[in-house]
Formats: sequence, structure tokens, C-alpha cells
Amino acid sequence: MLTNPRSERVRSVRALAGRSVRQRAGRFLAEGPQAVREAVAAQAEAHEVSRSGARRVHDLYVTSAALERHAGIVDVAHRGGVRVHEVSDEVLAAMSETVTPQGLLAVCSLVTVPLPQALAAAPRLVAVLSRVRDPGNAGTVLRAADAAGAGAVVLSADSVDVHNPKCVRSTAGSLFHLPVVSGAPLVEVLAAVRDAGCTVLAASGDGEHDLDDLLDAAAAGDVPAGAPDLRRPTAWLFGNEAQGLSADEREAADAVVRVPVHGRAESLNLATAATVCLYASARAQRRR
Amino acid sequence: MLTNPRSERVRSVRALAGRSVRQRAGRFLAEGPQAVREAVAAQAEAHEVSRSGARRVHDLYVTSAALERHAGIVDVAHRGGVRVHEVSDEVLAAMSETVTPQGLLAVCSLVTVPLPQALAAAPRLVAVLSRVRDPGNAGTVLRAADAAGAGAVVLSADSVDVHNPKCVRSTAGSLFHLPVVSGAPLVEVLAAVRDAGCTVLAASGDGEHDLDDLLDAAAAGDVPAGAPDLRRPTAWLFGNEAQGLSADEREAADAVVRVPVHGRAESLNLATAATVCLYASARAQRRR
Repeated sequence: MLTNPRSERVRSVRALAGRSVRQRAGRFLAEGPQAVREAVAAQAEAHEVSRSGARRVHDLYVTSAALERHAGIVDVAHRGGVRVHEVSDEVLAAMSETVTPQGLLAVCSLVTVPLPQALAAAPRLVAVLSRVRDPGNAGTVLRAADAAGAGAVVLSADSVDVHNPKCVRSTAGSLFHLPVVSGAPLVEVLAAVRDAGCTVLAASGDGEHDLDDLLDAAAAGDVPAGAPDLRRPTAWLFGNEAQGLSADEREAADAVVRVPVHGRAESLNLATAATVCLYASARAQRRR
Repeated sequence: MLTNPRSERVRSVRALAGRSVRQRAGRFLAEGPQAVREAVAAQAEAHEVSRSGARRVHDLYVTSAALERHAGIVDVAHRGGVRVHEVSDEVLAAMSETVTPQGLLAVCSLVTVPLPQALAAAPRLVAVLSRVRDPGNAGTVLRAADAAGAGAVVLSADSVDVHNPKCVRSTAGSLFHLPVVSGAPLVEVLAAVRDAGCTVLAASGDGEHDLDDLLDAAAAGDVPAGAPDLRRPTAWLFGNEAQGLSADEREAADAVVRVPVHGRAESLNLATAATVCLYASARAQRRR
């Protein structure tokens, strides 16, 4: 059992809370049962396919209490060839950025993949985040995109790092479910999703097209000329949480779509607006 | 100009960040241009109707920079009979809980109203939050309810205080747009919304009814026996962000509805799930 919270190992794990250290090490932290369960499941799956393949999870640190409570997760980790280390509560607390790491912490390989790889399967629904800065927002959109059945999530060059601990937590494990791209310039991203067959729809409160009208048109199978068809493969473009999309970002899309506001609110926040858009696409595509 | 950050007045404003002080004083803080704009607009509207009526906003504290930048907001405050005080940056910072109060802070009367008053107009869409603890979540749902055109929002007895500064911020002004109830026991709330004509739908990942199916049925005007009709007046019941709804809470609803998950995510988070439900109702009711 590891009991020294000031050891070199503890310090190097803790350092993965920093972006530049993550980039250098090619590793990040998944904390808490939800994220760790999905991480070790992905590792076990990959391990079954190829024992010599690239590792997704390297080390799992567990307190005695968590070893008992989350025995199922630890089993899957063993099956996936993950090194499991029992640690004292003090060691886990020292490794983690989180106030309540809940006894489990995994050191994982960065999950992001190159743009062409993420789009290779020609996904019918993609979420593109441009200049999203808040890790909680980015993670929540990633989780919603997973729930809506999206095939890929792309964060543009100026966005938050998806491996940020707060972002990882907000994804509730979805980070390990679908291909995620980060760091690509937006123009490249939009060219690539178009090449993969997607229409690019920018979400903005002042958009020309009302999302409800587009859903009606898609359901009726009668989309007016000039309006986007939600049944088609779609990449949604979402902008910065405070400023929304810039004029350039709007211009770069094929159409700008607004979520209808029925009450007196000025708008929805980023994550809720994105969820409504992604679920509208899921609904329209399901009817095909 | 108020320049002493250690004055009695500054301390008493700052103390409104605490729940018990708010309850005793019957006041809370709206910070930043978005919330303050909506607060003073509500006050000016009320002031026009009756100059001797109950005040919604008592004092507005503004820095010199904000006086210039937000001259429109300050004008509306004057028109509404709000006392406007110019303060130094230090005083505003000392009054506020927020890192960036952006130069504006209003002391407002608590906005919550009794349950019967909130339901007097027989709203067709109501959001009920049970045991929601995170102020950001509560505020985001309130904002989404406003955007979806809900006529009231109710927080049950065990929920966070809507006047919590973080919650106020998350509502982005929507707190001043629609009647909000807090502190009522859930059984009373559900009895009252039923009396007001609403069907109670509990939102839960393991619900018996799929939201997409209900939307299809409502659109076709052909709702199967035993399934809820989304076109009817509806009160949505949302549970605690970590544990979801309890067995008792589910039992208390007329039906339990799940947001479909198309991908591999286990669920959506509270605010995004609530938004999908509320927007589904808005869409179904619009067709009537």
C-alpha cells in the first residue's frame, strides 16, 4: 500500500492537473467511480482485442474502502491489464484536485484523436465547440452529444482542454465513449466535417432559421428551399459561452439556427442550447 | 460617493450572501448587468402601476465606470424610484461575493411568492424541483423554464435557496420574469399543481414512457391509453442532481418519463435533461 503523500509518484500524478504537464506526459486523470468505470471498461475492451496495443489506462489508485465498494470496477481494471495500487486516503487526497475523489483515480492516456480518424466513420451527428473556455460547459456538451448519439465531438484550437479534471468530471464518462478531437483550427474542422458529408449548422440566438420550424419541416418531409434539412448528417457549431459565435464563425456555417425562446429569457446557456439542438437532430434523423 | 469598504452599510449588503440573513432581511443581491437590468425593469414596471406599491428593488450600487457604461440601466432604475448610489470600486468589491461584479449590484426584495399566487393564472407549463442542491443547477433550470415559456417554477422545501448569489447569476435575469415558489413541501406542491389543472410528469432515466414517443403521439393527436398527453398542461418534476428522484417522488407523479439516450451516455445531467423535457412540452403545446 502506498502511504507517503509526499512521494515522487504522488507529486507526478498530481501534476497532471496542469495542462502543459498533461501534454508532455500524454496522460490525464480520471477521478471518481463514474469516469474510472468508463475508462477501465474502454481499456478492458481494447486489451481483449490486442494485448500489445496502446494502453488507455495505465494505473488505478484505490483506497481500501473503494476497493471494497467498487470491487466490480477494480475487477475490470485487472482484466484490462491495468496496474492497480492500493493507497491510503491521504495519498489519494494528495493526488487529486477534487475535494471528493471518492477513493478512485486512474491515470489514462490522452483520449483525443486526429480529425480524420474521428470522422472516418462518416458520423451523422457531430458537435463542434469553438472557443469554449469553461471546462464544465465543454464536459456537459460532450456528455449531451454522447446522449444524443453524436459520432464525434470537436473542440477548436482556442477551446479548453478536454482533459482538464473539471471537464472530465462533467462528461460523466462520456469522454471515453466517442472520438474527441481538440486543437484543430476551426476552418480545418469545418472543411473536414463537410468532406465527411455534414451540413454545418451554427447555433445562435439570432439565427435566421427557427429550430422548431426545421423540426416540423423534417417531420413533414418537406423542407423549403434554402432551409437546412435536419435529417441530413449535421455538424452543430457552438460558440463561446459569454460572447456566442463571432460574425466569422456564423459566416463559415451553412446556416444559422436559433432555439426558439417562448418566454422572456434572452437566451439559453451554452450547454442547454446545445442539448436542444443535438436532440432535435437526433429526433429528425431517427425518422428517416 | 461611498468610499469606505468597511462601513456598516457595506457589511450589511455583503451579509446578504448568507441565507439566514436574506430570510431575516427579506432582501437579496442581484449582481452584474444582466440580473440588475431585469430587476430594475421589473421595479420600473411595478412603479408605473403603483407608486406606493411594494418595492422590488431598493438600492442600486454603481461604480463610476458602470454609471457610464450602463447608463440605460441606471436610467430605468431612476424611473422606477430606485435609490442609486455611486460607489468606489473597493466598496463594490467589498459588497459582492462575485469575483467580477461588473460594477453593478442591486438590493432587491425576495422574489418568491406563495404557491397559490404562482398558480393563480393556471399555467400550462410548470417546473418543480425537488431536493435540488446546487445553486447553478437550480438557476440554469429556472432560466430554461423561462425560455421554454413556463408559467411558474417551484422549488420544494429541501432545495437550494433561489436567492443564493450563484443561483441568481445562473438565472441570467429569468428570476425576475416568472413566479417562483420556494420552501413548500412536495406533497403540497403536487396537490396544488393538479388542482391548477396540470398532469405531473416525473423525469427519470428509467421512466416507463419515452419522451420521443410522447412527442410523436402528441404530434399525431393520437395518445395511447395510459400514456400522458404532452399537449395537456404539465408540471415536470425534477429530482436531486446526484441521486435523481426517490421512489416516493416517482410514485407521487402521474407518469415517469425518460429522455431517450441514443448513445452510450448513462444519462444527461439535471439541467440538460430538464431543458429537453420543458422544450418537448413547449413544442407539443404549441401544436394545439
